[in-house]
Amino acid sequence: MTVGRERTLLSADLTPRIEIGRAELSLRQERVKERLSAGSHAGMVLFSATSIFYLTGFAFIPTERPLALVLPVEGESVLFVPRLETEHVRAMGALVDRVVDYPEYPGETHPMVLLGRLLGETGLAGRSLAADAPGYGSPWGYAGPSLEEVLGGEPPSVLGKLVEELRTVKSEAELRLIRESARWGNLAHALLQEYSRPGANETEISARASLEATAAMIRTLGPAYDPRGGSGAEAGFRGQVGPHSANPHAVTRNARLRPGDVLVTGAGATVWGYNSELERTMFVGPPSPEQERFFRHMMALQEIAFENIRPGRPCSEVDRAVRAYYDRHDLWPYWRHHVGHALGILGHEAPFFDIGDQTVIEPGMVFSVEPGLYVEGLGGFRHSDTLVVTADGVELLTYYPRDLDSLICG
Amino acid sequence: MTVGRERTLLSADLTPRIEIGRAELSLRQERVKERLSAGSHAGMVLFSATSIFYLTGFAFIPTERPLALVLPVEGESVLFVPRLETEHVRAMGALVDRVVDYPEYPGETHPMVLLGRLLGETGLAGRSLAADAPGYGSPWGYAGPSLEEVLGGEPPSVLGKLVEELRTVKSEAELRLIRESARWGNLAHALLQEYSRPGANETEISARASLEATAAMIRTLGPAYDPRGGSGAEAGFRGQVGPHSANPHAVTRNARLRPGDVLVTGAGATVWGYNSELERTMFVGPPSPEQERFFRHMMALQEIAFENIRPGRPCSEVDRAVRAYYDRHDLWPYWRHHVGHALGILGHEAPFFDIGDQTVIEPGMVFSVEPGLYVEGLGGFRHSDTLVVTADGVELLTYYPRDLDSLICG
Repeated sequence: MTVGRERTLLSADLTPRIEIGRAELSLRQERVKERLSAGSHAGMVLFSATSIFYLTGFAFIPTERPLALVLPVEGESVLFVPRLETEHVRAMGALVDRVVDYPEYPGETHPMVLLGRLLGETGLAGRSLAADAPGYGSPWGYAGPSLEEVLGGEPPSVLGKLVEELRTVKSEAELRLIRESARWGNLAHALLQEYSRPGANETEISARASLEATAAMIRTLGPAYDPRGGSGAEAGFRGQVGPHSANPHAVTRNARLRPGDVLVTGAGATVWGYNSELERTMFVGPPSPEQERFFRHMMALQEIAFENIRPGRPCSEVDRAVRAYYDRHDLWPYWRHHVGHALGILGHEAPFFDIGDQTVIEPGMVFSVEPGLYVEGLGGFRHSDTLVVTADGVELLTYYPRDLDSLICG
Repeated sequence: MTVGRERTLLSADLTPRIEIGRAELSLRQERVKERLSAGSHAGMVLFSATSIFYLTGFAFIPTERPLALVLPVEGESVLFVPRLETEHVRAMGALVDRVVDYPEYPGETHPMVLLGRLLGETGLAGRSLAADAPGYGSPWGYAGPSLEEVLGGEPPSVLGKLVEELRTVKSEAELRLIRESARWGNLAHALLQEYSRPGANETEISARASLEATAAMIRTLGPAYDPRGGSGAEAGFRGQVGPHSANPHAVTRNARLRPGDVLVTGAGATVWGYNSELERTMFVGPPSPEQERFFRHMMALQEIAFENIRPGRPCSEVDRAVRAYYDRHDLWPYWRHHVGHALGILGHEAPFFDIGDQTVIEPGMVFSVEPGLYVEGLGGFRHSDTLVVTADGVELLTYYPRDLDSLICG
């Protein structure tokens, strides 16, 4: 009888996981190497936490302690980490050939000096080297020399956008993660709406909805779920309650909801490092005629955007089409920002649906679509949906109701 | 009868607030100007979100849209913001003479070009200018020219640490905010411990404790409480559950607590932008003799640190004294990081209790004290307390029980 043993094998090796697999991580690294080769570079040093996660799957807390991925075109990749991260790299199964650690920052020898020595040992120093930044950077009390200062000789070519450009078109596996994120953002939002009643405090409504959605997500997905750096599912208002919703980037003020308030929400979930964006304009009780008028204009703006997102067009055209509606209806006093942005690992990524962004839209790009209207004293009006560009148009990944009747609370 | 009117005045003008007042913000700006004058600079451009908050009280979400404070030694200060933040600056009562906005990023004209023109109009271009960075930076899809590229002529002097240095010694008002933060971090931690039972999920325990502590804080402090950017009171494990607690910078894994687990916690609260740090090593049920042994060593390490923090000594001496204990007890296999870091607005700030940091300890500096021991397969052992340096020693700002008996859960 080998049933028991087979069961063990099954649970060890075949448990479905919601993640980016090693084959895809490997492909990403190969793409970087191809670009480096094309530019006659021998390798690259990457300091960006996002790029390191994208290329290796290693999610970590960026601090004052430098952390770098050394990616040669030929030879072993090396993750250069502070001592406190060494075992963590292995525990996460990061795709990297070798881990080299340094004791601590600032330490007796500055970590950047040690990185310089490592580049010397790997044979990369003195050759044509690329980097995503001149050196390490962090607002958390970090100071230190640039790569050029520790290496001497020719400064590395700073290719700050190389990995970011690879990230713009999402793979099937990435879309699965973003869809999963949208599912639990939807639940968190449904709970947020349910708890949005006059007299309730925004922080408490948000915390309760987020807690319950996160608990449901964990129970539903089981061990397949690995957030890789986020904090589960979340929904909230971020201070966008009543007249304060007229500030698109308000921060939480612990407002209490009152009848007649306009609310602008936000919801999402982190799934293996990936995110979605769902935002809705809601009302505490029936909206006033003035509120309803701005709501309907906002819906029209978003629909124009949906219709104008097509592969092959520049991003700027979407903003231009939406701007024409502001022109036609004299809505410029209420304009505060462009139509949307790409997203995935980060909350905002390039390109942007902005009059100044000529990037050509491609299938597989994932964007937020969120034109808004902001009226001093009255409130803000903005829905945000996440969509993926398809071969001939768009597909929405967020699916919370958008119509006015569905968005009246209390 | 003027009682009603007096009441109105009282509620409008005399409501106690938990904040940094305008007089202190003004003093901070004066200190920057003094340093600029001493260096013969005509003014400074600040891009750091932390520095802008520290000097003006404006808390905002840093994005791909450049935002800068222009602080001339003589003349009006200007906050250069994207259009979507204009009214927000006023709503927050930021201490700045003038707000100049630009439409959007990337926009038809790059915001950095517009900032260059503004510096020309204010008469600062062409004079000796300082900046906290060569240009704006953000991982959120931002790209753009440096100040030098848009201004031409002499590049600005990059004084990246000027404001950071002013932040190291805390004022009485700052200490009040950090004490208030510690109070609600303590409540969140007490609830976290109460809900830490075998079978419970770390994310749910954390979310429930954070929600309840935040609700209590909001009700207790009333309208005086303004988070300025945080999300209330929080407590959690950040993945540091059972053997995973051996990774000091673990990220959440949705672990379920099991009998015998070591837990490493973290708790705090954001109060007008300021934070405290409280961490404890806890056990699910009685610890094993091995666990108890490491716990007692960890306590000894932290006490050595407390005893060695004295004004006038270099930070490095604290680390050195603690390292001597690792030597004496053969604990180096379990060492992963230095003793602690300053904190306040950011979670980590300079200086560090690190063998390589020769900064002299001064009264009013606020530090975390958190030497740790990390044992593969067994777990991590770390308490973190926040303290302020006094005229002749230290005063703890966090006050959660530290002894083993108080930290057994379940």
